[in-house]
Amino acid sequence: MFQNFNATTSPETAKERIAAIRDEMAKEKLDAFLIPRADAHQGEYVSARDNRLAWATSFTGSAGYAAVTADTVGLFVDGRYTLQVRDQTDESVFTYLDIPNDNLGTWLNDTLGANSVVGYDAWLYTKSQLEALQREAPDLVFKASANVLDRVWTDQPAPPLGKMVPYPLEYAGVSHEEKITELAQNLTNSGLSAAVLTQPDSIAWLLNSRGSDVGQSPITLGFAILHADAKVDLFMHEEKSDAALQTHLGPAVTIYASEKFDSKIKALNGKVQIDKARAPVILSDWLGDKVAYGDDPCLLPKACKNQAELEGTTKAHIRDGVAMVRFLHHVATLKELPTEIDIVKSLEAFRSETGALKNISFDTICGSGPNGAIVHYRVTEGTNRQLQNNEVLLVDSGGQYLDGTTDITRTIAIGKPPLEAREAFTLVLKGMIAISVAQFPKGLTGRDIDALARAPLWAQGMDYDHGTGHGVGVYLNVHEGPQNLSRKSEVPLEKGMIISNEPGYYKAGEYGIRIENLIYVVDAPKGADDREMFAFETLTHAPIDRNMVIRGLLTKAEVAWLDSYHRQVRETLLPHLEGDAADWLNEVTKELFHDAKNHD
Amino acid sequence: MFQNFNATTSPETAKERIAAIRDEMAKEKLDAFLIPRADAHQGEYVSARDNRLAWATSFTGSAGYAAVTADTVGLFVDGRYTLQVRDQTDESVFTYLDIPNDNLGTWLNDTLGANSVVGYDAWLYTKSQLEALQREAPDLVFKASANVLDRVWTDQPAPPLGKMVPYPLEYAGVSHEEKITELAQNLTNSGLSAAVLTQPDSIAWLLNSRGSDVGQSPITLGFAILHADAKVDLFMHEEKSDAALQTHLGPAVTIYASEKFDSKIKALNGKVQIDKARAPVILSDWLGDKVAYGDDPCLLPKACKNQAELEGTTKAHIRDGVAMVRFLHHVATLKELPTEIDIVKSLEAFRSETGALKNISFDTICGSGPNGAIVHYRVTEGTNRQLQNNEVLLVDSGGQYLDGTTDITRTIAIGKPPLEAREAFTLVLKGMIAISVAQFPKGLTGRDIDALARAPLWAQGMDYDHGTGHGVGVYLNVHEGPQNLSRKSEVPLEKGMIISNEPGYYKAGEYGIRIENLIYVVDAPKGADDREMFAFETLTHAPIDRNMVIRGLLTKAEVAWLDSYHRQVRETLLPHLEGDAADWLNEVTKELFHDAKNHD
Repeated sequence: MFQNFNATTSPETAKERIAAIRDEMAKEKLDAFLIPRADAHQGEYVSARDNRLAWATSFTGSAGYAAVTADTVGLFVDGRYTLQVRDQTDESVFTYLDIPNDNLGTWLNDTLGANSVVGYDAWLYTKSQLEALQREAPDLVFKASANVLDRVWTDQPAPPLGKMVPYPLEYAGVSHEEKITELAQNLTNSGLSAAVLTQPDSIAWLLNSRGSDVGQSPITLGFAILHADAKVDLFMHEEKSDAALQTHLGPAVTIYASEKFDSKIKALNGKVQIDKARAPVILSDWLGDKVAYGDDPCLLPKACKNQAELEGTTKAHIRDGVAMVRFLHHVATLKELPTEIDIVKSLEAFRSETGALKNISFDTICGSGPNGAIVHYRVTEGTNRQLQNNEVLLVDSGGQYLDGTTDITRTIAIGKPPLEAREAFTLVLKGMIAISVAQFPKGLTGRDIDALARAPLWAQGMDYDHGTGHGVGVYLNVHEGPQNLSRKSEVPLEKGMIISNEPGYYKAGEYGIRIENLIYVVDAPKGADDREMFAFETLTHAPIDRNMVIRGLLTKAEVAWLDSYHRQVRETLLPHLEGDAADWLNEVTKELFHDAKNHD
Repeated sequence: MFQNFNATTSPETAKERIAAIRDEMAKEKLDAFLIPRADAHQGEYVSARDNRLAWATSFTGSAGYAAVTADTVGLFVDGRYTLQVRDQTDESVFTYLDIPNDNLGTWLNDTLGANSVVGYDAWLYTKSQLEALQREAPDLVFKASANVLDRVWTDQPAPPLGKMVPYPLEYAGVSHEEKITELAQNLTNSGLSAAVLTQPDSIAWLLNSRGSDVGQSPITLGFAILHADAKVDLFMHEEKSDAALQTHLGPAVTIYASEKFDSKIKALNGKVQIDKARAPVILSDWLGDKVAYGDDPCLLPKACKNQAELEGTTKAHIRDGVAMVRFLHHVATLKELPTEIDIVKSLEAFRSETGALKNISFDTICGSGPNGAIVHYRVTEGTNRQLQNNEVLLVDSGGQYLDGTTDITRTIAIGKPPLEAREAFTLVLKGMIAISVAQFPKGLTGRDIDALARAPLWAQGMDYDHGTGHGVGVYLNVHEGPQNLSRKSEVPLEKGMIISNEPGYYKAGEYGIRIENLIYVVDAPKGADDREMFAFETLTHAPIDRNMVIRGLLTKAEVAWLDSYHRQVRETLLPHLEGDAADWLNEVTKELFHDAKNHD
């Protein structure tokens, strides 16, 4: 079982740990010390070794940060964790602050005297973050210092040592030598001598390799230098490598122990590109005026999937769809109402039965009734709830397969949920269909089309407080940049990009609705005025619960889309199913009843 | 008649004039000299005195700029003027460049040797423009210099001397003393001692005054200083003022001759706010480190119309709607096919007949058949075209009334246009309806909802290359910032803002479609999740040509909107009409035939 349901923390440890950190701050003459959740790679998951925020505060949320001063500890969390942070931590130690209403820099500037010194670990902050902090706290001095937390964390775990393994060319589509040559040529063309890669998924993509260091992403923690002469230096613990890897990587790639990173960076000549928003600021310090800031060069080519990657992930989505149908059929035919944990376990079991599951792609979000309204709910033994009749169940989950990464949300009726919830479901479905069928001119960003997903909800005065979609990798991170589908997106959508299409609606204390398919960008036919247009192709195959649909709220075109989607789901998955599950799929993918006289 | 159809230019004058400018450049040791179309107020219209670009080049378009070097003259125009510029100018003198593909700074940098000196008139460029030029042309030296063009323009017209007149409180809604007090308080709260106002419409709004200096906007060219102690210094030619104005302005406002502006600015103490993107850069030079950059403080309050302004412009739109119905009826019942100029003249005559027309709000765009596809077409004696049967006619026009400014586009069938044009019209109408009925959460910008207007066209691979809408003033500029409805808009929509809703479609060489109503932002009812929502109220009243509508492409909801809009138009305008025009309005605002069996 990949997921666990444990959420025990030790709030009582914070007092002593913070006191120890303050002692070290005093030795370093620091008036404050910053504790981020991030590690040196700014990723979504951190290893046990890097889980400093949880160790110091006992808050285990997936986002947040703290600042220790002599008098208090500012603990910043966003709306998802407002309640959890108070449950998990000792309130006598912390000042709770609210992201984004409270700002770390502003809070520090207001809390500390002018010219106070704020220490930070230069591995754990980016240049962009530091610049923002200095702008927001103009009266303070920010100083790269020893990590005073690590100094007092006497039983800090060792770094993870997952093996880096080759990723077959069959799935990657393009050899790592070819990728390296092309990106190196770009560096040469831009007058750069090298680029430093600090994102583990960029390194995994570039070297056609995968790992198992952190969380549910198949990545290896490490750094790399891509030289303009098409050589790559890879820095990671020696134990992560073996002969098979070295054979795969070949002569273009040299593996060094992590400790060599420092001297190798400092020995670089010419202009060296680093990503201001993603790389540790220590690289800027080391490189001095050799720095040239620019996006991680792997970001965009990694996001634009090639034919082999799209074929692989299509297969992964069919495999995952079969597991989803078996799971949905199982839930639909249960004799007794299960608990949320029962649901999560059975879903993982159906995915495991495929024989191809490498991992789940994130902890399943399984929210029944009111728990569905907690957008990033993760069930624990403490919150576990038995499903009730006549409510809705929201299940957001995914699998990591060698050929692709899936991410799917279905909201299903348990019995007959109230009309209001079904109306909300139908509005969400309208928005999800609008994105599925959208065509749009090349050059547009996710922001430029996000409104299409929301307009049906807006028309009823409703909305949702999360993006409509995020980029997704191929057997890589389930949240992958640079593109997304939200009001914050400034990156043009390009052919081959995979994004999620997941509008939702949440009524606090009552229910949550979300419907999510993965889609990818394809060329669309040109119209009368001969423009280059894009459209989306849907990857996800699984029935959408027709018991939740109010037919009268859909236009005929929307009904036609749903019927056609269900026909595709049936035709694609039925060959892989048998018995009751096959019968059930046939039943639940039937056409909606047409009644054009009453509906539009 | 406000509009004229003259477009005579004298291309043969350019050689001599440019040569004279080059002689003066040599005296000033300038390697290049910049000629903008803008005056010191960066407005859309310039007075004859400021029409330097036209004098030097004989190009009369509404946008563009030139740079004179020793060897050539770079003449930059956008896609609207690609053909016109070649017709109007002497090609042996100019290098034609294309906005936005060609960039002035980059072109200068490529054309001139390193450290060449580029002269500019510091009254005619903003700080933002200068910064961009210096960024784009890092090898050049930009130098504020005497205007060498003005020196050789021996018969340069005198500046306009239109009277500044009081704008009645009944229409303005809030006294100018109250506006001054409130904005002055904001300055004090921000630690500023004064703000310099360089936008004539800001001054007109703040002082509840109007003028008649340039183009079709009722504005007075001048500058003002708003002091934090709620006093205003107004700088303009003495002849523009009289006793009535002085009585109106009262003791809070002191009028100075334009020549005093310099010394008064230099005598300011403390931090002085100027608008980096709108104020002449000479102000930055004068103020030195006293400058604090910030948006013109009148921009936002001017854009958010108060109740009196909304009531006034509602009346203006009814008056204008009556004129439009008389005009449309006239066109529909003509015995012989008119020319475009006939159409423009008759439309202005119907507006004049209201007895309230102060001016047209811009030169009417009247494009028949292929001329409709030229987005900013302005008919001249040279281009005038007789309408043909079975084509479409696009008429975009507006009136300036004391109580409001109108801007309306209708595309009408002359006979029975081809199916393709009617289909395009219907897609444009769908987008225009989508904006009309849109609801959206507070905080969104025009960019965030622009897609709604385009999605129906996108679905057929079609689009249009202009914004969906622009801000509109109340008896002020017909193009008014800061809000607009386009992919470039970063300003949140706020209650009371007026914008145009004008999607279109253009098939080069064949036809142009545009449908435009003015709308303004109102509160919308909150939905189940209790969000603050906005919607739009429509100001424009005039029938939309049902002969252009393909019923089968509209949903029932869209048909219902059109029928309801037409009912409103009829009920609002009919009391002001009589005889044949009234009968015609009754006829053309009837409901569309419902046939739910075949259509959705």
